[in-house]
Amino acid sequence: MFNQDAIVALATPSGAGAIAVIRVSGNDAIAIGNSVFRSIKSKNLELQKSHTLHLGHIIDNNKTLDEVLISIFKAPNSYTGENTIEISCHGSTYIQQQIIQLLLRKGCRMANAGEFTLRSFLNGKIDLSQAEAVADLISSDNEASHQIAMQQMRGGFSNKLGHLRQELLNFASLIELELDFAEEDVAFADRTEFFNLVNRIELVLKRLIDSFAVGNVIKNGIPVAIVGEPNVGKSTLLNALLNEERAIVSEIAGTTRDTIEDELVIGGIGFRFIDTAGIRETNDIIEGLGIQKTFEKIEQAQVILYLVDGSRLLVDGAIDSLIIEVNKIQNQFPLKTLLVVINKKDLLSNEIFQVVQHKLATNNQQPTTIYLSAKNNIGIEDLKNQLLSFVNTGALRNNETIVTNTRHYDSLLKALNEIQNVKFGIESNLSSDLLAIDIRETLYHFGMITGEVTNDELLGNIFANFCIGK
Amino acid sequence: MFNQDAIVALATPSGAGAIAVIRVSGNDAIAIGNSVFRSIKSKNLELQKSHTLHLGHIIDNNKTLDEVLISIFKAPNSYTGENTIEISCHGSTYIQQQIIQLLLRKGCRMANAGEFTLRSFLNGKIDLSQAEAVADLISSDNEASHQIAMQQMRGGFSNKLGHLRQELLNFASLIELELDFAEEDVAFADRTEFFNLVNRIELVLKRLIDSFAVGNVIKNGIPVAIVGEPNVGKSTLLNALLNEERAIVSEIAGTTRDTIEDELVIGGIGFRFIDTAGIRETNDIIEGLGIQKTFEKIEQAQVILYLVDGSRLLVDGAIDSLIIEVNKIQNQFPLKTLLVVINKKDLLSNEIFQVVQHKLATNNQQPTTIYLSAKNNIGIEDLKNQLLSFVNTGALRNNETIVTNTRHYDSLLKALNEIQNVKFGIESNLSSDLLAIDIRETLYHFGMITGEVTNDELLGNIFANFCIGK
Repeated sequence: MFNQDAIVALATPSGAGAIAVIRVSGNDAIAIGNSVFRSIKSKNLELQKSHTLHLGHIIDNNKTLDEVLISIFKAPNSYTGENTIEISCHGSTYIQQQIIQLLLRKGCRMANAGEFTLRSFLNGKIDLSQAEAVADLISSDNEASHQIAMQQMRGGFSNKLGHLRQELLNFASLIELELDFAEEDVAFADRTEFFNLVNRIELVLKRLIDSFAVGNVIKNGIPVAIVGEPNVGKSTLLNALLNEERAIVSEIAGTTRDTIEDELVIGGIGFRFIDTAGIRETNDIIEGLGIQKTFEKIEQAQVILYLVDGSRLLVDGAIDSLIIEVNKIQNQFPLKTLLVVINKKDLLSNEIFQVVQHKLATNNQQPTTIYLSAKNNIGIEDLKNQLLSFVNTGALRNNETIVTNTRHYDSLLKALNEIQNVKFGIESNLSSDLLAIDIRETLYHFGMITGEVTNDELLGNIFANFCIGK
Repeated sequence: MFNQDAIVALATPSGAGAIAVIRVSGNDAIAIGNSVFRSIKSKNLELQKSHTLHLGHIIDNNKTLDEVLISIFKAPNSYTGENTIEISCHGSTYIQQQIIQLLLRKGCRMANAGEFTLRSFLNGKIDLSQAEAVADLISSDNEASHQIAMQQMRGGFSNKLGHLRQELLNFASLIELELDFAEEDVAFADRTEFFNLVNRIELVLKRLIDSFAVGNVIKNGIPVAIVGEPNVGKSTLLNALLNEERAIVSEIAGTTRDTIEDELVIGGIGFRFIDTAGIRETNDIIEGLGIQKTFEKIEQAQVILYLVDGSRLLVDGAIDSLIIEVNKIQNQFPLKTLLVVINKKDLLSNEIFQVVQHKLATNNQQPTTIYLSAKNNIGIEDLKNQLLSFVNTGALRNNETIVTNTRHYDSLLKALNEIQNVKFGIESNLSSDLLAIDIRETLYHFGMITGEVTNDELLGNIFANFCIGK
């Protein structure tokens, strides 16, 4: 049995609003709620059905603290799996504090970060990867990360692993059975069938591990280094990219959130823009240091957006030095995606435009080039589409499982390593007892992801990242 | 019939938290909710009972936006009196926005500030003074203002006025009946009984009007001017006053709020501390301007806390100039409460302490004096009790109705004026038709408070101060 003392926390964001919700979970949650509640219809909360709402007052020693609505959830039909009440009170911080203090006096204790979700896991309502998805879901701020967290929370990932784990477990049992009959040299486990399963598992693990590359950038945003000298139009470009999205957000009063200027959501995918200086060739030591810094920042990015003020290309030799710089970046960072953006297109005469286009096109390295005018909002859509094309959204569109969690990634790598040991063992006719050890190891790493295998330290680390009240 | 189109708004504070609540009200609220909801148990929300909770997913075009709990409230048993649903979703701003945008596409419109409460008023669930109390309740940040708002929201104030209004209305009818029989010179309304009623109303109105003085300071905090030169220990004193209260607040993680250093809650009453410089006599023009400024700030305060560094009283003549300054303040502000606080008591020898005490006590104006050490937390309780004694909490303790709203105060003053006209009319045997006019005027002002009499501009002004979602 797990500890089911009553825990209490504010479940809604702190601050004043129309309403706030205080959540209490534990064996005595409903009884404690009833002890401070005077129902409008003189109802005893403990006698009410699960999933019902009750209007009344929270009373502290004959003093009315607030008129509230209490929701009742009876074990096991609640988020935590325990008896739970949610008190929906007026959203003043004073009232929130008073009600929570009263509940503490009545025998509740303050919930730790993520403790409601921890209990949900401990009570078998969800597995560990689903619990982790709850935190991801709350922190998701764009369509892609939301979709992945949602899929994980609904158990897509767990089910996939769960089925494979069950099949592997069956074979493990058969192989361990062979150990009991070791002297008779029987083989209960069909080696061919087993080999196929191991191959299937290897394939799935590889696919999941590969998905982490896209999963990680979706979760954390795709880092884009903007290389460009001052006044080429960096902030105008960011604003042009931002404007459309922001309009959607501010349409809904009351839900507008602070936007960090350098983080943009384009087509549901988050992009993090990293500002850097130019990399013009120089003999100056100080400027040389500047280039060094630019290179360091580019190192963190996945995409390099090289922004050029088109009007400056009118100067003699400007196009040639542009090509030299572009080639230098490509040589320095051959694995990163480079995108050359010529801004202030409106200031380019048709003639110059064609010269630039021709020179860049005949350059043997041929970087992707976009011509736009950030100020006049020309070509911004092209840029967005181009940026999105760098993200492999195929997996996302096909609703495939995408791994976003470093802990999962780590366990998957270890599981892959073990399953490859198993595979090698079968191929080399390893004895059942040695094979059984590698299979157990594989199962162990599967279990680490879904929480069949766990320890206090692991749980502590995971739930410490939750907010209180979840 | 009132406009019952479906309105939607976020009801919880904006920002990320464990959960958020989105509220929809209107004839079609439940139908709209049902159209975007896929219940875990395939339930049709429209067929469910009022005051029940349903687990399921919000679906937008086959895309799952979130797992949510939906609360159903059927007209007239809801806050607004209309069909209402509350969607309790995960507290990510992205999810909040997505769900609200979906509901807007499904036929809801964004609620205006206070529109849910406005509908509650228009649908006769609460009267206007109760509606106003909702906003007061949400903004209340201490025990006293909370208690007054709570009483008003529960209808204490309205009931009091309502009964008097009904009695007055009965007499008004009788007197207007007399007009129909004017030629026969009959008197349906017993003039003695009527006179008694008018006297009773006058008394109640006067008491309510008087209560505004205390109500106003409770609602807005009692302004206290701290007069004191630099380094006499102002901030140490404020911190000492603050510490205890802050400890209670920060005990509850997640509900801690930003404290404005100059606003303290002492014994459930809010105090606003206004910092001013000293008022030492001077010939210097610039210092003279400083004194002028100090005086202007004192003008806004109700209590003057004159803070002195006790250790500086050891200097020759210091005590005498202290007394001169204190007297000057008393002469300048005879109607304000003065409190002399001698800080750094620990640095005073017993001898000096007695000299100071004696000199201040023999001074003919004898201001209340407290000796304390803010640094060592000595005498802080005395100061708190002294400050609290300046607030007439008698009415608060006796749970009497206290007027805090300037609009109500204004209407009460006008009603008093009219009822005194009625009284004078009875005394001077005014004819029924003229009496009837004054009575109607009184009733009009009563009605303005509770909302029987109203207009769009008045409602607009009142509800504009609400937050969206309430």
